[in-house]
Amino acid sequence: MVVPQINVTSQQGPTLAPSRVDELETPAVTIDLDAVECNIERMQAYCDSHGLGLRAHVKTHKLPRVAAVQIDRGAVGVACQKLGEAEVMADAGIERILLTYPLVGEIKWARAARLASRVQLSVIGDSQLIARGLASFLPPTGSVGFLVECDTGFGRAGVQTPSEALELGRAVAAIPALRFDGLLTHPAPSAAQSWFAAAVRLFAEARIEVPTISVGGTPHAYRVHERVALATELRVGVYAYGDRACMLRGEHALADCAMRVRTTVVSRPTPSRVILDAGSKTLSSDLANSTDDGLFGFVVEHPDLRLAALSEEHCHAELTRPSAAPAVGDIVTLIPNHACAVSNLHDHVYLHRGGKLPEHVRVAARGRVQ
Amino acid sequence: MVVPQINVTSQQGPTLAPSRVDELETPAVTIDLDAVECNIERMQAYCDSHGLGLRAHVKTHKLPRVAAVQIDRGAVGVACQKLGEAEVMADAGIERILLTYPLVGEIKWARAARLASRVQLSVIGDSQLIARGLASFLPPTGSVGFLVECDTGFGRAGVQTPSEALELGRAVAAIPALRFDGLLTHPAPSAAQSWFAAAVRLFAEARIEVPTISVGGTPHAYRVHERVALATELRVGVYAYGDRACMLRGEHALADCAMRVRTTVVSRPTPSRVILDAGSKTLSSDLANSTDDGLFGFVVEHPDLRLAALSEEHCHAELTRPSAAPAVGDIVTLIPNHACAVSNLHDHVYLHRGGKLPEHVRVAARGRVQ
Repeated sequence: MVVPQINVTSQQGPTLAPSRVDELETPAVTIDLDAVECNIERMQAYCDSHGLGLRAHVKTHKLPRVAAVQIDRGAVGVACQKLGEAEVMADAGIERILLTYPLVGEIKWARAARLASRVQLSVIGDSQLIARGLASFLPPTGSVGFLVECDTGFGRAGVQTPSEALELGRAVAAIPALRFDGLLTHPAPSAAQSWFAAAVRLFAEARIEVPTISVGGTPHAYRVHERVALATELRVGVYAYGDRACMLRGEHALADCAMRVRTTVVSRPTPSRVILDAGSKTLSSDLANSTDDGLFGFVVEHPDLRLAALSEEHCHAELTRPSAAPAVGDIVTLIPNHACAVSNLHDHVYLHRGGKLPEHVRVAARGRVQ
Repeated sequence: MVVPQINVTSQQGPTLAPSRVDELETPAVTIDLDAVECNIERMQAYCDSHGLGLRAHVKTHKLPRVAAVQIDRGAVGVACQKLGEAEVMADAGIERILLTYPLVGEIKWARAARLASRVQLSVIGDSQLIARGLASFLPPTGSVGFLVECDTGFGRAGVQTPSEALELGRAVAAIPALRFDGLLTHPAPSAAQSWFAAAVRLFAEARIEVPTISVGGTPHAYRVHERVALATELRVGVYAYGDRACMLRGEHALADCAMRVRTTVVSRPTPSRVILDAGSKTLSSDLANSTDDGLFGFVVEHPDLRLAALSEEHCHAELTRPSAAPAVGDIVTLIPNHACAVSNLHDHVYLHRGGKLPEHVRVAARGRVQ
């Protein structure tokens, strides 16, 4: 046996300089930049053709480099879910940031105010507490945009009725430190169209302009122009990578799934059981949501291999028919259920084109939950 | 409003020097060292009273400092699930490491051989490929222990029958670079007792000593002496922190749950809906396993608050009766379902005693899936 070229620096994990993805130690998360660019351009073309601003959500990749490609191809800016993500993007030179999370508390407001001093920041909220709290930390005549978060049917955060939206929008418009930017919802159920129509009527009666109506979510994004015709902005994240949930919805073909997880078969206890070295600490425990069949990923080389359960570091897979393949030591490639969760588990991913020259890149905004 | 003392260094996240846990920005993971020590001493006393070696699994905390306490109180060594974790523990001076994961592939074997040159390493496996592969990277007369992994009913990795265990044990005993150390299983179903009894008979007939029978898992750990009387070693991890799964099984009282997640109420869209700033990127999507009720944690201050669903950064909670409390801005404390998954999501946790002087500590072995 040949000892591979390896330089173990245990504080940093093993460092390898493989020339191809198929030489990477497992488990490893790989990102095909050709597929990423193709996905970005496809969604940008859709938004362009329907007059929608594309707001690229960085929660999926957490990589400034991918955000820069999204901006370059025409995105109006990025969306960040947490302040910590936004700070990382600002450090990397991203200038237009929408923070799509309710900021509550003096520490958050102080941080947001500092961020607003160096980027074009917009925020969201569903209560006057958020608007007034943030404003108290901003310069008196501000340039921070504020969108009213609306619960148009998902049942998460957001004002519950168009008249509540007007009440908050009016309060925001009266705060000099803030700029009322419009309305926002996530995701965009079909009911959002009538919800926003009612709200727009109320704002028109009150003579308050609603510059932006922002809707979110990769699922069904390509039908937003039909489903929520009032939308002016589409916030999407997963589209850039694709994952098994996207495949199940028919929105991404296998070739469009840029994120893959290389795993090794570490045990073949029975002719039908296959154990892979990727558990919930590699893939997360997330299922594929609405299209859920209870499985934890798709195996490119063995579509018949059902990823039935996860331990923390093991994937328990079952072959539909007993077989000697795959054998212990074989490498198989998974499409994970949920790309965003996988990015958030890994300190590094490998960027590549066509499987060549994988580059070990730090996931700069991972774990930034604050 | 008073601007808090804050020093934002965005590359590192906010750095604060609060004097109490209840001043920490949210979401934040806190670890009560008094409770940790109490949990460690209780399990150690159990093992001591039943002649079991306690092998402390670091996958739960991933902190060399906690591992050192476990060793200090009498653990025979640590268990690590991945090589990367073991390398971090070795760097921190932990000397006796059992790697409870099947090592497959030349890169892994080369790394394990380097690790074996600086610590007392034992490994596990269920195939001769693993034993021979690793041995080919070791000095000819080795001191690396090897336990045969046995599937005694869980249905994950491991040889399937006592005679397969003997076959592999005999092969290992014949490899000069390895030392046959015995048998191992995870977890320890009641059937493990008869399984091991049959195996021990076969090994005795073959005149091969079985020094160790190692069983694993915090669930039902305090009954291992009754359920698997042949066990000589107990591998446990979660016991040190406790989590909601431990509470539901009745093994940890609320006060024994050392890991807590401080969260802020960021939205109150309706009188019964409460949105907290801790989603699946803070808590993981893990349910509480066998005792699962579909909820995502327990709220210390509001036991009536049902954590019904998670988004990536939001917890969707429902009050059983409409109420104004908790209000936007209130802080509530969660007991997460699964401590190991939470440790693995966070770059840092806060260690404290009695809520005072929280210390910001890097989770050194987090994310070490390779």
